[in-house]
Amino acid sequence: MTSSTLLLAFEDERALAEELAAALAVPLAFVRVHRFPDGELRLVLPKPLPARVILLRGLQQPNDKLVELLVAAPAAREFGARELLLVSPYLAYMRQDMEFTPGEVVSQRHIARLLAAHFDRVLTIDPHLHRIASLDEVMPPGVGVALSAAPVLGAWIAKHVPDALLIGPDEESSQWVSEAALAGALDHAVGRKVRHGDHQVTLALPDCEVRGRAVVLLDDMASTGRTLIGSAEQLLARGASSVDVAVTHALFNGDALPLLKAAGVRQVWSSNSVPHESNAVSVVPLLTQALVDA
Amino acid sequence: MTSSTLLLAFEDERALAEELAAALAVPLAFVRVHRFPDGELRLVLPKPLPARVILLRGLQQPNDKLVELLVAAPAAREFGARELLLVSPYLAYMRQDMEFTPGEVVSQRHIARLLAAHFDRVLTIDPHLHRIASLDEVMPPGVGVALSAAPVLGAWIAKHVPDALLIGPDEESSQWVSEAALAGALDHAVGRKVRHGDHQVTLALPDCEVRGRAVVLLDDMASTGRTLIGSAEQLLARGASSVDVAVTHALFNGDALPLLKAAGVRQVWSSNSVPHESNAVSVVPLLTQALVDA
Repeated sequence: MTSSTLLLAFEDERALAEELAAALAVPLAFVRVHRFPDGELRLVLPKPLPARVILLRGLQQPNDKLVELLVAAPAAREFGARELLLVSPYLAYMRQDMEFTPGEVVSQRHIARLLAAHFDRVLTIDPHLHRIASLDEVMPPGVGVALSAAPVLGAWIAKHVPDALLIGPDEESSQWVSEAALAGALDHAVGRKVRHGDHQVTLALPDCEVRGRAVVLLDDMASTGRTLIGSAEQLLARGASSVDVAVTHALFNGDALPLLKAAGVRQVWSSNSVPHESNAVSVVPLLTQALVDA
Repeated sequence: MTSSTLLLAFEDERALAEELAAALAVPLAFVRVHRFPDGELRLVLPKPLPARVILLRGLQQPNDKLVELLVAAPAAREFGARELLLVSPYLAYMRQDMEFTPGEVVSQRHIARLLAAHFDRVLTIDPHLHRIASLDEVMPPGVGVALSAAPVLGAWIAKHVPDALLIGPDEESSQWVSEAALAGALDHAVGRKVRHGDHQVTLALPDCEVRGRAVVLLDDMASTGRTLIGSAEQLLARGASSVDVAVTHALFNGDALPLLKAAGVRQVWSSNSVPHESNAVSVVPLLTQALVDA
């Protein structure tokens, strides 16, 4: 990184921002955000800005943050940034990737295009691309960079649960789960998700022996946690010796975490892509490598 | 309007939408919106869409609604709309119109450009343009259309408070207040706003006799209502026989309305640009005329 690079971040991601700035050896500054009673946001950026600005903004609970990005990006260019990179460890709206019912808005495509129109590069981690192979299908080629936290999660699990059996949620996650398994030299299998609505997803577990096994349920994200809870209960009923959970993105909306514990899940680990008490593995080395290469 | 026009609206603006569709004699349909626990929105539009689509969406509490518009607009074009008009009776972010402190993002400009990039026309009412003369300064010429509810508010007041003295908040509102006064053949004057923060705005009242007068405080919007409350108290202390309030946009965040009543304000009237219990005057004739001309 040159001295003409600045990492710009938001206060609610301070820990991740400080770790990333130190790893990149670039200065760090924060966007000041004020919320008015009428719901409008006022943003203040440092000024002037250097030629290269890396904006760190995860998009968990995304709408306010999207609006922030869409006004901050053109302002950053006015204030001197010639190259503007977005590091969005969690990228929202990526699951809305097809017209499930007629007239349904495929927000994945529109949100991706909006971000690509405002940033020169968009780096993210495990963006849940199930029906498309790469961000290049929804952004101009070369703009989107999708990194994977599977290897670091796999290595973490191997260190803490040496003979773990990794179980992923569905066939679409198969390659991702096998990368984690490879990194940790662990057994793995995938189930099949059956979705009945926002809160109702059941997992058909894979047809392998779990009796006496230390199972780690692996997924790219946990939101309501309902799939994981149902799976943990099934696994324990089928004789698993323990069930832990490891996810990249710890969204954990509502009462997800206490319910996971109540269902018998022993430990919950996540990457720090989304700030959360379960954060155990850092994505900073991944991001740093990608940014040095970018 | 031709049969190839559809008015598309959102459920929380159903009354205004029904009135506008009837006045335009065009069919009305609603965007179905679902909110996921992780804060993402899923939108479903009618499909296919006719050649001309008028999307009605006021931007009070704007951020979720802005994201809705930014994904709904490209989807509407995919579903057949060739001309896409936004009717946003209340347009947000228009007060953030200069860099009050160094580095402050001038969101007015960026939000206006975003909307202009997604819609062929943007119609709004009383968009609080204090430092710019017209929407043409922040949108490509001809895209933005700003209508004024001042005349209909003035006429309403004249009917209900025949000898009212209209008082506007500041010099910048002078022309707007005089339009209302003209429509109602009423006396008018303007004060001077002194802003100390979000909630602290005091009004220096105009130097005219208010003793025994039925005063109507007029403003383009009421948010926290603090300016109006302070003004009403001053006016009653100076002997005004009554104080009513009339605004275009009834944002009335938090406890604004009960506090206005507690301060001695007799009646609060607003246009129906923002759905609210105080709605007394309809903006539909204004919008209809502009849409027929558009």
